[in-house]
Amino acid sequence: MLLFWRALHFLTIYVINFPSLSFGATLKFERSEVIGDIFNLSPRGWLPGNKERPLEDWQQEIEGYRGIADQIIERSMRGPAANQSYDRLATFVDKFGYRLVGTQNLEDSIDYLLEKLKEDGLENVHGEDAIVPHWVRGKESAEMLSPRRKKLALLGLGSSVGTPEEGIQSEVIVVRSWDDLDQHSKQVKGKIVVYNQEWKGYSKSVDYRSNGASRAAAYGAVATLIRSVTPLSINSPHTGMQDYTDGVKKIPTACITVEDAEMMDRMQQRGERIVVKLVMGAQNLPSVKSRNTVAEVMGSMYPDEVVLFGGHLDSWDVGQGAMDDGGGAFISWQALSLISQLGLRPKRTMRMVLWTGEEMGGIGAEAYYHAHKGDISNFDMVMESDIGTFHPYGIKFTGTEKATKIMESVVDLLRPINATQLANEADGTDIAMWMSHGVPGSSLLTDTSSYFYYHHTDGDTLTVQNPKEMDRSAAVWAVVAFIVADMEEMLPR
Amino acid sequence: MLLFWRALHFLTIYVINFPSLSFGATLKFERSEVIGDIFNLSPRGWLPGNKERPLEDWQQEIEGYRGIADQIIERSMRGPAANQSYDRLATFVDKFGYRLVGTQNLEDSIDYLLEKLKEDGLENVHGEDAIVPHWVRGKESAEMLSPRRKKLALLGLGSSVGTPEEGIQSEVIVVRSWDDLDQHSKQVKGKIVVYNQEWKGYSKSVDYRSNGASRAAAYGAVATLIRSVTPLSINSPHTGMQDYTDGVKKIPTACITVEDAEMMDRMQQRGERIVVKLVMGAQNLPSVKSRNTVAEVMGSMYPDEVVLFGGHLDSWDVGQGAMDDGGGAFISWQALSLISQLGLRPKRTMRMVLWTGEEMGGIGAEAYYHAHKGDISNFDMVMESDIGTFHPYGIKFTGTEKATKIMESVVDLLRPINATQLANEADGTDIAMWMSHGVPGSSLLTDTSSYFYYHHTDGDTLTVQNPKEMDRSAAVWAVVAFIVADMEEMLPR
Repeated sequence: MLLFWRALHFLTIYVINFPSLSFGATLKFERSEVIGDIFNLSPRGWLPGNKERPLEDWQQEIEGYRGIADQIIERSMRGPAANQSYDRLATFVDKFGYRLVGTQNLEDSIDYLLEKLKEDGLENVHGEDAIVPHWVRGKESAEMLSPRRKKLALLGLGSSVGTPEEGIQSEVIVVRSWDDLDQHSKQVKGKIVVYNQEWKGYSKSVDYRSNGASRAAAYGAVATLIRSVTPLSINSPHTGMQDYTDGVKKIPTACITVEDAEMMDRMQQRGERIVVKLVMGAQNLPSVKSRNTVAEVMGSMYPDEVVLFGGHLDSWDVGQGAMDDGGGAFISWQALSLISQLGLRPKRTMRMVLWTGEEMGGIGAEAYYHAHKGDISNFDMVMESDIGTFHPYGIKFTGTEKATKIMESVVDLLRPINATQLANEADGTDIAMWMSHGVPGSSLLTDTSSYFYYHHTDGDTLTVQNPKEMDRSAAVWAVVAFIVADMEEMLPR
Repeated sequence: MLLFWRALHFLTIYVINFPSLSFGATLKFERSEVIGDIFNLSPRGWLPGNKERPLEDWQQEIEGYRGIADQIIERSMRGPAANQSYDRLATFVDKFGYRLVGTQNLEDSIDYLLEKLKEDGLENVHGEDAIVPHWVRGKESAEMLSPRRKKLALLGLGSSVGTPEEGIQSEVIVVRSWDDLDQHSKQVKGKIVVYNQEWKGYSKSVDYRSNGASRAAAYGAVATLIRSVTPLSINSPHTGMQDYTDGVKKIPTACITVEDAEMMDRMQQRGERIVVKLVMGAQNLPSVKSRNTVAEVMGSMYPDEVVLFGGHLDSWDVGQGAMDDGGGAFISWQALSLISQLGLRPKRTMRMVLWTGEEMGGIGAEAYYHAHKGDISNFDMVMESDIGTFHPYGIKFTGTEKATKIMESVVDLLRPINATQLANEADGTDIAMWMSHGVPGSSLLTDTSSYFYYHHTDGDTLTVQNPKEMDRSAAVWAVVAFIVADMEEMLPR
């Protein structure tokens, strides 16, 4: 039976790989050279490239990695690398603070990191150019003038236009939903629309931040103030990206606090006339060049085949960007670092990419995708950590049923840190394009219960990070990336 | 046996009450008039004033109140009064915002409330003067200039002096504890001391806010910046009172955020030189007159005997003072309101006092105590709600062992709202003086797990309040106050 499979494989490998030869000729050449070895010597009794390989065989192979997984975990949690990703992140964010795309500060932080990655002994350390938007916040303020004077904390939204220098002073209408807006469309003209939408989870509620300006502008609103997208507030405005709809007038838009949105809602219910003055110096300047930051541990057998993992290095211009996405970026570095420190070398290349311009809409990731999509058949798996590094439970995975079962075995190796969950549907702006073109994807599965308290606020600082949780996250990342990169075959897709 | 107790009581009442006759002559006269009735007719079979009254008798009497307690609870939770305290508070805090002592805004809010209390049909509605400090914040800002420029969110502390107009620019030394300060005392001179004390609960950690300035000034510090006293921060500074030590130079002092205190601590550990510029326009102006706000439901039999309950109406100059102590103040109004709405009239007077100047150190409560301490023997119980109105579990009580057992029976009447816990040691700045002179005291026992997130910040707004929890708190308050005010006898002390 085994011989039959091997013979079948030998035929299959050329047929299957043929279409991708143009993208990965060198690799395929190398692979064809080693096939003979594997055919005779593979310690795991199977050959790479065989789509029909039984699941049990994958599982048996993965089980063989338990010792290596334990080593990685041990080094991350209790060994000399304990606290390392936290300490590196601390030094980084304290030195540079936040890193808004378009700023010299972000570029300086990239230069610093490239240097550190080289010092860490990693391979192929380099930046890859990406053209990114250059939005500047400028000075901004909002004050309620009627029914009483009260300053409103606010943060303008990314890509928003500014107000005239003297600001916009106008009556307010508060709406709670799109329906509410539509029902009051005739009262919107000339007013500032305040959205006081209920928190229904980030993915639902963020719709108001993303589209609130244009939907109100279509009815003639002069500006929009959107309740910050968060379940908890200490009068905390949250910034974020917004999208203007083509053909609709661009009006200034900002997030205000939950508290102030609710207050104005109550005032409106009481029949009080609300007047707000909004001043925003926001500007959209010409695009500039930024860089994705890349480092690798190169593969020993199939160096052109890649397990890609990362986070983004840019942040909003608030806090320190230590959570979003300092955590994701630095556990990715740590994952590479752990493998390197342990002297491990996977068969495929482990490639860290720290994207730029994520906050402006995954700009760096888009540039990266377009530069590398020709090699898509060599991308074994793409991994993104951008939902915090608080208490990882395992990973979220997008792939075929068989790949999912394989990954269930992989995360089972994370038993020592109790991170064995495999959830459905990896998420992440920066890997979405790869996944939509069939590349298996993973994202870090974490406790997100407090993530949106700090998201896009001045509270996104090192204070919210915990060294142990970062160690645990880095261990998850390193184990998953290494084993997928080292297995006999790429994940089926 | 019963007759023996009654006869003994008849003798005892004059002996026991004699020392207090000078303070409560009118009352005692009225009481002596009704004694005959009670002797013959008391429906509960016992006479007031008997210290030896068996506990079982108290318990039996209290059990008889279950129907009334149910009525109060029903009206508060589901009846026409549901949401009323929340709605009243909302209207109030949206109209006036925060209410710093010394401001016309606080006095306007007191005038408004006196009017509303009269409209609500309450009795003896009036203000009682109290002389209060007049501290003004002025403009304030802080910026870290080295190792990099970063604005520091801050709130100056009550009673702090300001800086010179041009500010104070100085090197920073970070300490984590009093011991740490003492050990580095020689390095403090001429510096700004940053306290990065660990959060160990409010009552412990607030010591740094209260005494940080003078303890550092004694070693020659030029200013102090204290980590805000909170377990959770979204870069949120918390204000509060501080106390200068006599004979020590008064230096400017403010709270910064947990995040910035931790950041500077890390920078110091890395050997980086930290320089901060602090500007504070704070001033201590001459004292002014404010008022405690009083309303009653008068007692039917012993109107001069009083169950006093309340919260404070002043707040810090941040947020809306909706939690600290809008909640406590408005559930106190609601407690009176509920009794009045139900047409109940207790034997003793239920008196609500909304103190002024609490935030500056219980100033209004001190004035109230000194004005009324001559009547102390008529104060049956004092009650304060100033730790939030989030999910009440029952009450905290300070009193004799017997009084505690009696109160256990009283809170058992709160079974329908599951608020039957009786904890030890009532707390509250505004009732402390009464308790220290032997008057039994109660405070609302609540879930305080998130209270200090918002305490003394811009996040102290109506958003943190929940109508149902306020209804529940008002029910606790009304049941406890009414029953203690209506029982045959004052609580033993």
